[in-house]
Amino acid sequence: MIVEMKTGASQTQVDAVVNRAKGLDLEVQLNIGTDKVVVAIVGGHTGGVSTDVFAVLPGVETVTRIMKPYKLASREFKQEKTQFNVGDVVIGGARLVIIAGPCAVESEEQLAEAARVARQGGASLLRGGIFKPRTSPFSFHGLEEEGYSLLDKVRKQEGLPVVTEVTDPHQVEEMAKYADVLQVGARNMQNYALLRELSKAPCPVLLKRGLCATVTEWLMAADYLLAEGNERVILCERGIRTFETSTRFTLDLGAIPVIRKVSHLPIVVDPSHAAGHFDLVPSLAKAAVAAGADGLLIEMHPDPQNALCDGLQSLTPNDFLRLMDELKPVAEAVGRTI
Amino acid sequence: MIVEMKTGASQTQVDAVVNRAKGLDLEVQLNIGTDKVVVAIVGGHTGGVSTDVFAVLPGVETVTRIMKPYKLASREFKQEKTQFNVGDVVIGGARLVIIAGPCAVESEEQLAEAARVARQGGASLLRGGIFKPRTSPFSFHGLEEEGYSLLDKVRKQEGLPVVTEVTDPHQVEEMAKYADVLQVGARNMQNYALLRELSKAPCPVLLKRGLCATVTEWLMAADYLLAEGNERVILCERGIRTFETSTRFTLDLGAIPVIRKVSHLPIVVDPSHAAGHFDLVPSLAKAAVAAGADGLLIEMHPDPQNALCDGLQSLTPNDFLRLMDELKPVAEAVGRTI
Amino acid sequence: MIVEMKTGASQTQVDAVVNRAKGLDLEVQLNIGTDKVVVAIVGGHTGGVSTDVFAVLPGVETVTRIMKPYKLASREFKQEKTQFNVGDVVIGGARLVIIAGPCAVESEEQLAEAARVARQGGASLLRGGIFKPRTSPFSFHGLEEEGYSLLDKVRKQEGLPVVTEVTDPHQVEEMAKYADVLQVGARNMQNYALLRELSKAPCPVLLKRGLCATVTEWLMAADYLLAEGNERVILCERGIRTFETSTRFTLDLGAIPVIRKVSHLPIVVDPSHAAGHFDLVPSLAKAAVAAGADGLLIEMHPDPQNALCDGLQSLTPNDFLRLMDELKPVAEAVGRTI
Amino acid sequence: MIVEMKTGASQTQVDAVVNRAKGLDLEVQLNIGTDKVVVAIVGGHTGGVSTDVFAVLPGVETVTRIMKPYKLASREFKQEKTQFNVGDVVIGGARLVIIAGPCAVESEEQLAEAARVARQGGASLLRGGIFKPRTSPFSFHGLEEEGYSLLDKVRKQEGLPVVTEVTDPHQVEEMAKYADVLQVGARNMQNYALLRELSKAPCPVLLKRGLCATVTEWLMAADYLLAEGNERVILCERGIRTFETSTRFTLDLGAIPVIRKVSHLPIVVDPSHAAGHFDLVPSLAKAAVAAGADGLLIEMHPDPQNALCDGLQSLTPNDFLRLMDELKPVAEAVGRTI
Repeated sequence: MIVEMKTGASQTQVDAVVNRAKGLDLEVQLNIGTDKVVVAIVGGHTGGVSTDVFAVLPGVETVTRIMKPYKLASREFKQEKTQFNVGDVVIGGARLVIIAGPCAVESEEQLAEAARVARQGGASLLRGGIFKPRTSPFSFHGLEEEGYSLLDKVRKQEGLPVVTEVTDPHQVEEMAKYADVLQVGARNMQNYALLRELSKAPCPVLLKRGLCATVTEWLMAADYLLAEGNERVILCERGIRTFETSTRFTLDLGAIPVIRKVSHLPIVVDPSHAAGHFDLVPSLAKAAVAAGADGLLIEMHPDPQNALCDGLQSLTPNDFLRLMDELKPVAEAVGRTI
Repeated sequence: MIVEMKTGASQTQVDAVVNRAKGLDLEVQLNIGTDKVVVAIVGGHTGGVSTDVFAVLPGVETVTRIMKPYKLASREFKQEKTQFNVGDVVIGGARLVIIAGPCAVESEEQLAEAARVARQGGASLLRGGIFKPRTSPFSFHGLEEEGYSLLDKVRKQEGLPVVTEVTDPHQVEEMAKYADVLQVGARNMQNYALLRELSKAPCPVLLKRGLCATVTEWLMAADYLLAEGNERVILCERGIRTFETSTRFTLDLGAIPVIRKVSHLPIVVDPSHAAGHFDLVPSLAKAAVAAGADGLLIEMHPDPQNALCDGLQSLTPNDFLRLMDELKPVAEAVGRTI
Repeated sequence: MIVEMKTGASQTQVDAVVNRAKGLDLEVQLNIGTDKVVVAIVGGHTGGVSTDVFAVLPGVETVTRIMKPYKLASREFKQEKTQFNVGDVVIGGARLVIIAGPCAVESEEQLAEAARVARQGGASLLRGGIFKPRTSPFSFHGLEEEGYSLLDKVRKQEGLPVVTEVTDPHQVEEMAKYADVLQVGARNMQNYALLRELSKAPCPVLLKRGLCATVTEWLMAADYLLAEGNERVILCERGIRTFETSTRFTLDLGAIPVIRKVSHLPIVVDPSHAAGHFDLVPSLAKAAVAAGADGLLIEMHPDPQNALCDGLQSLTPNDFLRLMDELKPVAEAVGRTI
Repeated sequence: MIVEMKTGASQTQVDAVVNRAKGLDLEVQLNIGTDKVVVAIVGGHTGGVSTDVFAVLPGVETVTRIMKPYKLASREFKQEKTQFNVGDVVIGGARLVIIAGPCAVESEEQLAEAARVARQGGASLLRGGIFKPRTSPFSFHGLEEEGYSLLDKVRKQEGLPVVTEVTDPHQVEEMAKYADVLQVGARNMQNYALLRELSKAPCPVLLKRGLCATVTEWLMAADYLLAEGNERVILCERGIRTFETSTRFTLDLGAIPVIRKVSHLPIVVDPSHAAGHFDLVPSLAKAAVAAGADGLLIEMHPDPQNALCDGLQSLTPNDFLRLMDELKPVAEAVGRTI
């Protein structure tokens, strides 16, 4: 951390900064320039100290963080890329992980049909929400508790592990019995009560990036998941909110090489929510793979025109199968398989 | 809702749109131009129908919503401005409601001292968090359950109703015993499990605007609170995330006249979180009052330099008292009192 | 255009809307619902009429545009994709157009060396700025007029057409003698004095997207270029400004399929400015090709460590040649060549 | 500037940073921590050095700027607040400067009527554009050169100095004869060819903030104006682009106290462009005054319903006069007059 004193700051003010740093067991080095004093605080655990601790002192102009504020999710903490299994599926390996299925589970028939198409196309996980956070209280919110046994039945029948969203910390334990990966939605990325519970969950967690979360905040949210021992975390880029409205969100593919550089966690991409329209999904899916994503989360519905939720961004089975064919050479072009 | 068909859309495609609308019990009027057909769907409950229902049909170019997608929070639903009491304090009346206090409750002494200063300055509610959502899992998270009795004791001793943040749906019932207003933080604005529980709470709710929530989404979140009968909702503008970093967030004071126009709910402003630095708070506080806010939420701490949380944006008691003096003529200039 | 009247708008107010539309030679269709009147204005040239013309009338609640506000750049105006030549190079064809070179021209030696590496890697155009808009007045601003002959010399010597930025409307005529494509920088996308002059230029124009321009505004800027007859326009996506700071800008690859859908113009992508760091360029370059871009604009410098401008985002010759090798299979995977 | 080396950076890499700094005549201080080396570069002119100069060197992790990158516009360069006259009007004094008038000049009658109303309400400058940058090439672009003599006539007749927008560097000299203040529009804030010309202009310049310009970039643009001797610069906040669409732009009033802190230049606010609708203008105008603005730029039109440009955000004469009455007590409440 670098504390820049104001021009003309007094010796007493500089001392106060130095003493506070020492009180926190941090190393201090003074840089006395012609114009102003700059205090470098270079100890190993400065990442965990708030900049406010110094910024609030009299005579301080600015405080700049050098160490990243996240820790467990960082490359510095763990150098090798994280890999783990969901059933037989390897997450973070050379083979891309395709997670496909409907936004919301509507019926056993719908989910089973989606599972068959997903498997046929080469997907290795099935997605399907039973608790659906919706912007309006008057919309369809999913089958809720009724959906538990249905998820369980279809995953066994079709032999595909299931990813589903959890929205309440008190559901975690129960849902972990019926699903293989629990998903944290974008709107809950900073729902810390939920994250803390998931850190103790017996299954992997897919953490969607918040609509307006920076990469740094996203990795700090991952730190919550990692903090109590759950090491099986998958990051999912799904578009951020910007001024542009021709797509539902702006897919930030730059986050892929950034995450690779600073974190050991695997990252998948959801082109469907970013696009908001089925027409735009294939381009973004190919781009995500070319950018180096470890997998894709794709909305596909047996009958999008009659979907209860997000039909507009869902691929039909035919469109999905065509896209899977088109993705294969792209994956190979960047040294991956599907 | 206005459905614009593609140039050259077939009669069958137009019919499919019309039939779907009729199936949803909506009125349809056809506008047949030289270039394209436009279907106007003008029934009273179109606000509750997703645009996707039509956008997903073949031959449809765009679907544009005319009715607002929120309902219970709208001026159309309730014309007169909402007013209610918290103890003796009127929310939404001519007298501005000042809610002051520390970000986090640290001790009985700290909270009691804050309460005394708040009251001295003319505040009518005391704020203080015992559950603090923090971006890092390694930061101070508040006194948590231990804080309940402390809140209760100080509010009785000092005679100020208390506003505190709730983060878990399963805490709502218990917290409502010790606090007078429950606050939903910006990061939880779309935590629907929490909102649904609060809709049944026996106390008013202060709903902070999400970091990247539009006014429309904010009012849809308010609809969740209103949906099961809780009519005592206070909106709180606290800055949105933009590209600008010289303030912590960008305070959107335009939201005040917009909310007045479209909603009946009272709106207060939190200049402290938007500013991120105590230096900038007074300007924004005065601006909020001049823009027509119903009140302010101001962070004030007996000793900001040693605050465990957000000290940098907290006013000292002296700065707070000076600001309260300066706010009075501004309030009067726009026909309000403090 | 759809004009929604306020609930309870008078007949006189509705008539005023209708009369104004008729006065502009537009067709009007009335939709009288139970709650409110909606006026559909469906004539062919409504795209050119401002919504304000109606929004400003008493009794009007909202006005929603149906027709796109851009015209000449739209697919409706011209259905087939635009293709044209720059020398022997086809823009908008199956072969991707790679435009490579330094941000700023520093010397003949530097530019010639860049040209040789560019050609060796398979690039078909050379980039190099002689007028460099810089955020600080104290930075290097390019060789300015002195650079003209240098550009001309190197393009002839190395046999590569040259792309260079123009910043002043009064330079257009002169610069067109020494360069093959004139570039409008992001900060000048809405410099209409410049666009109007370029609309009369005898050479193609590469139009960078403004830092905070929507796709719609970008195509309206293209309309300026097309308005007086210059049909050779290349769009260039180069990242938009968002709250995220881990990359210099957020590359919006969703713009590629959107542009394909609504416009006939070719679109290339500049991953260098979006990334801001050479490390991140290859991922984004591959993603852009996979998403369907017609080409790339890549910063490459013989010696980035000593570049006078934007060295951090420039590839070294070696990194550039490696990237070109890696791009080939990606291009083939989506049916293109390099 | 603070250069953070990568963990494990070699001595040679550290030396390269140190030598480059010394080569630029900067002071260097090494901070050798347990984990990494941090190089502090503390010389007085580091604000003018690009961070890329160091970031591009091998072994460097991050480079953080401490000195502000703007200079002439900073408080450090000039401590006392800038004040100057436009005719008899003091800019930056205790009396607020109200600049009112139509967006575009349409006729002598319209402008003269606007001037009379402006003066009656207490405005001290008249605004009116004759070159109007418009997003569509098919919109009304102003009277252009024909407007020169009209501006001149009305300002003499009505005795109000005139503010008008300049869009082409080659118009500056001519326009300065007919107008008292030249305005740089938001879309031209980084049109450096224009700024450089205006730096030599014989009259004050009003510099609107770019739609997506940070405060820092805005002050760097001001540096362009100040660089060649024009010291009479007025900053104008007019709203920034964000995801929110209920107002045309998001007015960033936090910029007022920020500018006060870091710059000596006067700042006025344009609530009309930010609001986009006349209904929302009064709230924002009052808020701007309460926040400490030095003045307002208000669009007012004798007949907004028939305005050729931006009628929707223009006040009628009556609404303008009422607002001016309402602003007076707000100004007094913050120690200013109108």
